[in-house]
Amino acid sequence: VPSRLPHVGTTIFTVMSALAAETGAVNLGQGFPDFDCDPRLLDAVNDAMRAGHNQYPPMTGIPALRQAIAAKVQALYGHAYDAQAEVTVTAGATQAILTAVLAVVHPGDEVIVLEPCYDSYVPNIELAGGVVVRVPLTPGTFRPDFDRIAAAITPRTRALIINSPHNPSGRVWTRDDMLRLQELLAPTDVLLISDEVYEHMVYDGQPHESAARYPGLAARAFIVSSFGKTYHVTGWKVGYVVAPAPLMAEFRKVHQFNVFTVNTPMQHGLAAYMADPAPYLALPAFYAAKRDLFRQGLAQTRFRLLPSEGTYFQCVDISGLAVPEKDLPEADFCQWLTREVGVAAIPLSAFYGNGFDQKVIRFCYAKRDETLKAALARLARL
Amino acid sequence: VPSRLPHVGTTIFTVMSALAAETGAVNLGQGFPDFDCDPRLLDAVNDAMRAGHNQYPPMTGIPALRQAIAAKVQALYGHAYDAQAEVTVTAGATQAILTAVLAVVHPGDEVIVLEPCYDSYVPNIELAGGVVVRVPLTPGTFRPDFDRIAAAITPRTRALIINSPHNPSGRVWTRDDMLRLQELLAPTDVLLISDEVYEHMVYDGQPHESAARYPGLAARAFIVSSFGKTYHVTGWKVGYVVAPAPLMAEFRKVHQFNVFTVNTPMQHGLAAYMADPAPYLALPAFYAAKRDLFRQGLAQTRFRLLPSEGTYFQCVDISGLAVPEKDLPEADFCQWLTREVGVAAIPLSAFYGNGFDQKVIRFCYAKRDETLKAALARLARL
Ligand SMILES: CSCCC(=O)C(=O)O
Ligand SMILES: CSCCC(=O)C(=O)O
Repeated sequence: VPSRLPHVGTTIFTVMSALAAETGAVNLGQGFPDFDCDPRLLDAVNDAMRAGHNQYPPMTGIPALRQAIAAKVQALYGHAYDAQAEVTVTAGATQAILTAVLAVVHPGDEVIVLEPCYDSYVPNIELAGGVVVRVPLTPGTFRPDFDRIAAAITPRTRALIINSPHNPSGRVWTRDDMLRLQELLAPTDVLLISDEVYEHMVYDGQPHESAARYPGLAARAFIVSSFGKTYHVTGWKVGYVVAPAPLMAEFRKVHQFNVFTVNTPMQHGLAAYMADPAPYLALPAFYAAKRDLFRQGLAQTRFRLLPSEGTYFQCVDISGLAVPEKDLPEADFCQWLTREVGVAAIPLSAFYGNGFDQKVIRFCYAKRDETLKAALARLARL
Repeated sequence: VPSRLPHVGTTIFTVMSALAAETGAVNLGQGFPDFDCDPRLLDAVNDAMRAGHNQYPPMTGIPALRQAIAAKVQALYGHAYDAQAEVTVTAGATQAILTAVLAVVHPGDEVIVLEPCYDSYVPNIELAGGVVVRVPLTPGTFRPDFDRIAAAITPRTRALIINSPHNPSGRVWTRDDMLRLQELLAPTDVLLISDEVYEHMVYDGQPHESAARYPGLAARAFIVSSFGKTYHVTGWKVGYVVAPAPLMAEFRKVHQFNVFTVNTPMQHGLAAYMADPAPYLALPAFYAAKRDLFRQGLAQTRFRLLPSEGTYFQCVDISGLAVPEKDLPEADFCQWLTREVGVAAIPLSAFYGNGFDQKVIRFCYAKRDETLKAALARLARL
């Protein structure tokens, strides 16, 4: 059977996690915590199951969770979404993004992605029959280049996908960036898909500049987030999307014929747990401490540290290492690092359509301090 | 924004469940049980959460669950699927079917559906850019009409979607049907998507004729099933697909960029619970008793009963009722029945692209006996 995605293999995160498991390496590749979530969240889910919340929830999500999401977004970013018409619970952020793309991208429509970018965006656009337009972030700094974005917009541009805090780079868009984007899109009909799954992981006292803060962006945006990232339960696969009602109506047409609904007991558990903002408000300090521990350790090595302003990722330049493997393609270096040094990482080349190789790899620091220390001990060899 | 699915509204199941909730009607519309699952299954999920199974599982599903699925399929239907390469856990059957369609249907490919059919199939094909070819099941009996299916196959036919036990009709394909289908497809490259979510609900001593029993079908088939239906947990959204390795490879390329993975604690709980075949082997007797109770009650009314050989659905012809509303379009009759009689049902016209109205509606009998009796008491008025 001819492939719909001929250029696609198995996602790098699966490949590297499998290799880490096989070789017993410390897995700093795929982004997920190696520690447990708050047991109160498990209690809340268990209570929901025992209370009989095991059948289909409403297609859009249970009202209590939609209301909690709308309240949080309003409290943090000042935009009042209607919990009934403008909030939908999804089976994770990846499903939300595919569904948004399928809902608005017609065959032949152009969709702009900013490279490096998460590896699902491009296949999502291809499945919708859209035309992928790749615009690089500024090489080296990974900051948005608005001149290049502006130059990429045509009358056929249906949407732009942005992501801040940014995976893989760990860079965070500023207020000035968002204002420039708002101005740039103002005269256009371009829709925005804003992947904000790391919204609660922005450090050093900076705010998360959600598209929801900017009326000219919010009016055209699907904003996507993830409970898996925020509450240390990446395996639960619950996320959400907020969007203006007309966009959400199209989203739901597709959503109902994709997953239809999302796990009922998890929704009830999350709705109860979300009543307390303390857990997500504590995240920046929690993860900044891990980042600092990891960076302090790496500072003793020949890896060159790039900034990690947000996300739970730390990128490093490998070109100054003393080992000959530093000259391998990033992907081969990561294989070698996993097999021979015992630490799994992700090559940045996996986030580029052309495999652009800048000798930068990504570590995930959402790990117990002992795990980070074990990885640092191994990396110190280099 | 122009719609990708201009003909689609909100799925009938959502509409009727919302109306039932609003009016306090007995909800025999949307197909889900109003009783609880086995508490041992909840224990198994809770144990998995407490054991820390809350992060990303493998993209294809946890090995224990894939192995349990392969073992079950082999035990029941005699086909040995490789648990590694030919089984994938999905976020429900609806997600499995969309993903299979996106994986193999190229723009312009024809896909045959047999009407009446589940309301996601047609939008699924449209989202892939495929051409929907509608072939009616035999009017009145809902049996497959192989001459019409044969006549619909062209060199552009990519796939045929079948569904037995059949929603909405409750009819079940026979061994002879499957042999005829196998023969008919033998000289073609047509793929099969076999929706078998009601596989454990076939009554009166009949076997479920899975496509997995027929080598000539299994070799070209995505076979889809649902733990939600089998274990009375429709809200958990866990299902699976089995297919030959080359087809599964294409499926997984899309799956990883749709939901990526499926809820980890539910997968562990289901894997543990599946070790005992007793729960699903008990289902035919369990649901046949409910069917019989419901049919005996309806036999006292002017509803004309159609066969219910499988599924948990009972279709009835309303044309002999003594009320003038019997002449309304089915959808309006169902609205009236919900509001004025207090019993929600689903119009069969919702399962046809042209809204074909044969004065038949569908009740779901996956309900406590008290619920069925309460509904019967209300329906007795007619
Ligand atoms: C969906 S698996 C990958 C998790 C993740 O977001 C990442 O590692 O980039
Ligand atoms: C996915 S909601 C509908 C449940 C169902 O299968 C039906 O009622 O037909």
